[in-house]
Amino acid sequence: MMTDRVFNFSAGPAVLPVSVLEQAQRDLLGLPGVGISVLEMSHRSAPFEAIIESAEANLRRLLNIPSNYRVLFLQGGSRLQFSMIPMNLAADGQRTPNYILTGSWGKNALQEAVKQGDVHVAWDGKSHNYNCLPDAEDIDYSDNAAYVHFTSNETIQGVQFNSEPETNGIPLVCDASSDFLCRPLPVERYGMIYACAQKNAGPAGVTVVIIREDLLARGPDNLPGYLNYRSHNDNQSMWNTPPTFAIYILDLVTRWLLDDIGGLDHMLEINRRKSQMLYQVIDDCEGFYDGHADRESRSLMNVTFRLPSDELQKAFLEQAAERKLCELKGHRSVGGIRASIYNAMPVEGVESLAEHMRQFSTANR
Amino acid sequence: MMTDRVFNFSAGPAVLPVSVLEQAQRDLLGLPGVGISVLEMSHRSAPFEAIIESAEANLRRLLNIPSNYRVLFLQGGSRLQFSMIPMNLAADGQRTPNYILTGSWGKNALQEAVKQGDVHVAWDGKSHNYNCLPDAEDIDYSDNAAYVHFTSNETIQGVQFNSEPETNGIPLVCDASSDFLCRPLPVERYGMIYACAQKNAGPAGVTVVIIREDLLARGPDNLPGYLNYRSHNDNQSMWNTPPTFAIYILDLVTRWLLDDIGGLDHMLEINRRKSQMLYQVIDDCEGFYDGHADRESRSLMNVTFRLPSDELQKAFLEQAAERKLCELKGHRSVGGIRASIYNAMPVEGVESLAEHMRQFSTANR
Repeated sequence: MMTDRVFNFSAGPAVLPVSVLEQAQRDLLGLPGVGISVLEMSHRSAPFEAIIESAEANLRRLLNIPSNYRVLFLQGGSRLQFSMIPMNLAADGQRTPNYILTGSWGKNALQEAVKQGDVHVAWDGKSHNYNCLPDAEDIDYSDNAAYVHFTSNETIQGVQFNSEPETNGIPLVCDASSDFLCRPLPVERYGMIYACAQKNAGPAGVTVVIIREDLLARGPDNLPGYLNYRSHNDNQSMWNTPPTFAIYILDLVTRWLLDDIGGLDHMLEINRRKSQMLYQVIDDCEGFYDGHADRESRSLMNVTFRLPSDELQKAFLEQAAERKLCELKGHRSVGGIRASIYNAMPVEGVESLAEHMRQFSTANR
Repeated sequence: MMTDRVFNFSAGPAVLPVSVLEQAQRDLLGLPGVGISVLEMSHRSAPFEAIIESAEANLRRLLNIPSNYRVLFLQGGSRLQFSMIPMNLAADGQRTPNYILTGSWGKNALQEAVKQGDVHVAWDGKSHNYNCLPDAEDIDYSDNAAYVHFTSNETIQGVQFNSEPETNGIPLVCDASSDFLCRPLPVERYGMIYACAQKNAGPAGVTVVIIREDLLARGPDNLPGYLNYRSHNDNQSMWNTPPTFAIYILDLVTRWLLDDIGGLDHMLEINRRKSQMLYQVIDDCEGFYDGHADRESRSLMNVTFRLPSDELQKAFLEQAAERKLCELKGHRSVGGIRASIYNAMPVEGVESLAEHMRQFSTANR
């Protein structure tokens, strides 16, 4: 079975650790000692409670989450968060949400926020074609800001923040969907961090929200129950039936990060090494590959570049597929090539892609 | 592995067909010919598009869904539907949502609807302790009703409609979460049918919405994107990343219903037979088991009853567990015993429970 697997560079849902898939496979007909598959397991049962508690504990260990932050497991992806954030955190109408836009997902978040009230754009990378990050002095916050929203890694553009923007006390809200768990984070600098799981943390269908306790109070009582963070917080993410199997896989992935990888410092080292292999080829190819992101803004997770022509790009993808290097096509909105090299992408997959890039550029230059 | 499995009477997430679990297990490291697990598969990939199209086609065949109805795969469970329904279908403020309450889930639906505006309760089974269904002449619709909402099967009370309430042209909206696919349905009598999957259709994390096309137009443009049925409809349920693995399991379950069971007529026959086995014991036990539902309102899916004392109930559950009959405790809000015997519960499981009930009542009468 293993020999059939390809290297999956999909931007999400994305590659998972083989050992996680093997454990899930082994126990798919019944968790040992329980006799019920996690797919069939009541969310109120003791075995599932152990799973969701373990998933939270793993996240707390990996990210060193302070005790005044709550961890929630929700549905609806980042898209639903784009609405829930202003509905919960800026409901009083007195304070203005601020948005830093470094790519497509930040713009999607903004698009939902404006439906809920006035919004201020503190920085917009549009004039740079979203290939870079803001300089600190160019970010312009509004008076009385409700929060500052930013996207730590723009999956489509391949642009990633190296550190948090300074907000001078305004709660910082981060869409970390595509770089969550790729490195340690100073959680105490955030008001809220959220991430859909299907890049680094698990399969599609569960979204992790890490929120500072005091911000929970901002949600008005008349919000739809599912959209109020307090509903979920007050019920340990069981206000409704949570996506049990997705949380189970997230538990296995976070355990893999702790036990097999050795924590997020090690994960970061590996991610630096993997991404450097590809950026090195881009830098060495005398312009054959045109990297989208500025050097200082390059993503550890999504390496984006273009080839000299559509014809060459087509040939590049076809020859990659022959090497079992798959899902390398860029997002339909921007084109080009995107190699998503999340935590679970093996070093060998990246090595093989780097080799392909080198050979292809030599042959076609 | 199979020998370790117990009979899982959980109300949801609930038992799945063993053949479905076996197929999912076999392909968990990579779908044949694809080399990528469904857990890792891009929702935009051809193999996943084949899965979601197959899931919809299976549902259309099983329920004979007319072509002017759309099938959507959403997240957030029925709880999010409780809000989305009034937000989409009664947004003009001119028409009043009507609710028929036959148990706990109908009341939960109402609780969210009232946050969105005026609501009319057309019938409430409260004075009967939610053990029965309304007589047609007792249902009192308001003038200018936006829709009529009812819960076809009340999981907690074990009360199920045998046929649709007559609404004289008012769009009928049905929470079919816990009896979806247990029998054929005249879809053309409905405006909308919705069901979270984790009873009869799959694992937790996906909710099926079947909605008549003309009702999609009712959703206002300024709704949060995720909460507008049109967002999902216009993008074939891919406005955001859908819960891919849950949809895959739903595809396998619906294929099992078509190929192994032979369709919903056959499924209904089996469900009648299974539930009758348990109700027969209740009727034969001279009052030892106190069934909650009126005879005419008894559910095919959730058989609810009480024992003469808490002590006897405890012993009943302990001895059931020794026979590998698990998850029989009633919902924490009402207590008692609840045997959920969804489609995938094997006849042998129900036979074994009926035998246990008979022996236990004889021994303890």
